[in-house]
Amino acid sequence: MPTGTAEQRLVGLADLVVEAARKKRDPEIEIPVRALSNVAFNPKKRIIEMKDATQARSLFNLGMARKFMQTMLVADALAVLQREKLTTSLREIYYRTKHTLRDSTENTFDAQDESDPIIEDIEVALAALREELQVAAEGRGSIVGNVVLVDDGDAIDCTRAGKSGHTVPSIVEEPGIRIRKCAADFVLLVEKATQFNRLSEDKFWKRHNCVLVTGNGQPPRGVRRLCRRIHDEWKKPVYVLVDNDPWGYYIYSVVKQGSINLAFESQRMAIPDAKFIGLSSYDPEKHKLPRNVGIRLTDKDVSRAKEILAYPWFQKKEWQREIRNMLASGLKFELDALANKDFRYLTTDYLPRKLKERDWLD
Amino acid sequence: MPTGTAEQRLVGLADLVVEAARKKRDPEIEIPVRALSNVAFNPKKRIIEMKDATQARSLFNLGMARKFMQTMLVADALAVLQREKLTTSLREIYYRTKHTLRDSTENTFDAQDESDPIIEDIEVALAALREELQVAAEGRGSIVGNVVLVDDGDAIDCTRAGKSGHTVPSIVEEPGIRIRKCAADFVLLVEKATQFNRLSEDKFWKRHNCVLVTGNGQPPRGVRRLCRRIHDEWKKPVYVLVDNDPWGYYIYSVVKQGSINLAFESQRMAIPDAKFIGLSSYDPEKHKLPRNVGIRLTDKDVSRAKEILAYPWFQKKEWQREIRNMLASGLKFELDALANKDFRYLTTDYLPRKLKERDWLD
Repeated sequence: MPTGTAEQRLVGLADLVVEAARKKRDPEIEIPVRALSNVAFNPKKRIIEMKDATQARSLFNLGMARKFMQTMLVADALAVLQREKLTTSLREIYYRTKHTLRDSTENTFDAQDESDPIIEDIEVALAALREELQVAAEGRGSIVGNVVLVDDGDAIDCTRAGKSGHTVPSIVEEPGIRIRKCAADFVLLVEKATQFNRLSEDKFWKRHNCVLVTGNGQPPRGVRRLCRRIHDEWKKPVYVLVDNDPWGYYIYSVVKQGSINLAFESQRMAIPDAKFIGLSSYDPEKHKLPRNVGIRLTDKDVSRAKEILAYPWFQKKEWQREIRNMLASGLKFELDALANKDFRYLTTDYLPRKLKERDWLD
Repeated sequence: MPTGTAEQRLVGLADLVVEAARKKRDPEIEIPVRALSNVAFNPKKRIIEMKDATQARSLFNLGMARKFMQTMLVADALAVLQREKLTTSLREIYYRTKHTLRDSTENTFDAQDESDPIIEDIEVALAALREELQVAAEGRGSIVGNVVLVDDGDAIDCTRAGKSGHTVPSIVEEPGIRIRKCAADFVLLVEKATQFNRLSEDKFWKRHNCVLVTGNGQPPRGVRRLCRRIHDEWKKPVYVLVDNDPWGYYIYSVVKQGSINLAFESQRMAIPDAKFIGLSSYDPEKHKLPRNVGIRLTDKDVSRAKEILAYPWFQKKEWQREIRNMLASGLKFELDALANKDFRYLTTDYLPRKLKERDWLD
C-alpha cells in the first residue's frame, strides 16, 4: 500500500516507470480491480470494502498502451494540483490532459468518460481519496447548528449562519476544512432541502441542540465526509432522515456502509453507527397519514426493495420487517406528506416523538 | 391590480367569493393568461413582460368548478403560510391541500402537476411573487466576496465565509434577507460550480473587489433575485460568466430580461443592465484554445442558436455577430476548457483581460 503525501505517491508512480526503463524492463503499474467481484461487506467493520485483486497495466501491450499513457497524463495533472495547491473538477482534468499527439490525428482523450475512470484507478492504486487528490465532486449542501467550522482560515459559527446556512464544500479535508468545535448532541442528515428549510426556519437545531446538514438529494461526498468527520472527531451520533421508499433506504445505506461502486472510499466516508430516523413504513399509521398521500410502489420500486432485502447489511430482523411492511402496504411516502397534517408537523411532532421514543433503526 | 400585503391580497380573493354569494351572483375570479400570446418584450424597460389578457374562473361552470375549488384550497394554504410566517415548497402545498372529498372517491388534487399551475395562477392574479407567497423554489447557490448580508437576523460577512461561501437562500426577500452593505465594484454571476470554486479558491473577489455568486447551473430564482437586489440597492454592475453555447446565451438572457414562461416575474428578477462577459465565440481564438477542446454543435444546438438569433432582445449587431460566429465555427466551448491552458487561467488571464479591455456584450 503506497504511503507518504499524495504528491509523493503520485511521484512514486512515475518513479516506477523510470526505474523500469533504467533496468530495461517493461514499465508496468498495478491497478486494483474496481468490480463487484472485488468488493465485500466486512461484517466486523460494518462497511463495504474493496478486496485485494489487482491487474497489471503495461506500456508494451497493444491493448493497454493507450490506458497506460492516459494514466501517466492524469497522474501528471494531479501532481500539478498538489504542487500548486489547487483543486479542480473531473471535467477540467479531462480538458487539461487532452491534446492531439504530434504528427497524428490521435487525441490523448476523446471524451471525459475516458479520463474519469483513470482518476478512479489512480485513487485506488495510490490509496488516495479523490479529495486528497484535490479533485472536487459535483454537488454541495448546507449546514446550520451547533458547530464551528474553519473554512479556508475563516471561522464559521453555524449557529450564526442564518436560515440558509454555510455551504458544505465539495472537499472536506484538512487543512482546508477543520471542525473547531461541536457542542451539539447529534447530527441530523436531512435528505431534502424542503425539510432542511423547515427545520432551519424553526430553529430545530436550537431546541434540540443538534447540527442540521443537507445535500439537497442524495448526499454528495462532501456532505458524507463532513458528517463522518463530526462523528469521528467529536463523537456525535448521526441520524439520517429520508423518504420512505427504496431510494431512501439506499441513501441511508450508502451513508452507513458505503456503496458498492465506490467501495474504496467507505473507510473514509462510511458511518457504520448512523441511524435511520425515518420515514419508516410504520410511520404513516403511527402518525395517521391519510392513505391518499401515499404513492403506489412501481414495479421498479418493488424489485429494488427486494434487492435491498437481500443485501447482507439489511439482514437484521427489524430491517426485514421494515422493508416487508412497505412492500405489503404497496405504498411509499415522502417526508413532504407530513405537511398534510400541518406545515410544521416535522418539527413539532414527528422528530420530537422519534427522539423521545428512541424510535430509529440501526 | 391588487394591493396590500400578500395576506390581504389572499383574503381579498376569498372576499370576492363571499361577496358574490351575498349578492347571489356566481363566484368568479380573474386570472391573467399565462401563455406566449400574452407575453411581450418591452424594449423601453428591456424586459419580457406579461400583457393584460385575463380569463374568468367561475365556480358554476362544469369545466371550471374543479379548478375554482383548487384555487381556493391553495389560496387558503398560502394564507396559512402568511399568518404563521412559514415558508414551504411547491410539493408541500400539494400534500397540504390534498384530501378526498367527503362521501366520494374524488381527490382535491391527484398529482402535483395540478397544484403547481394553480400557484402560478395565484401569483399573477395577486401580483405577488412566489417568494412573497413564501413558497420556496428548488435549487440553491453560494456567495462569497465583498458584501454583508443579514440572513434571519445573522450578519453574514461574505469576505469571511470561507472558500465555499454562504448558501444563497431560495427566498431572498425582506425581512428574512437584507443586504446590509456592498462595497464591491461589481457582481460576477458564475454559471458553474467549477469556476466558482476556482475563483473563490484564488480569492479573485479580493484582488478584483467583487462579489462571486453561483447557482450551480442555470441560476435558480434566489440567485437571480439576490443579484438583482445587490444591483438595485447598491448600484453594482452584474457580469454573467457562462459557457459558449446556446444554453449559455439563454442563461444570460433569462438573467437579463427574464423568461417567456415566467414573464410575470421579470419586473422583480430581471437585470436589464447585466453584461455577458463570456465565453464569447471569439474567445477560443483570442486565447488560442486548441480546436480539439471545442465540442461539435449538435443539430439541436444549431436550431436553438437560430431561435435565439431571432429573439427581439438579441437584435443588436454585436449579438448577431457573436451568435453567427459560433454557428460558422460549428463548435461550442465550455469554460472548463480554459483549464487546457492552465488550471488558473480563468483567474490569472481570462477575466483580468476581459475586465481591462471592457470586453463584454450588452
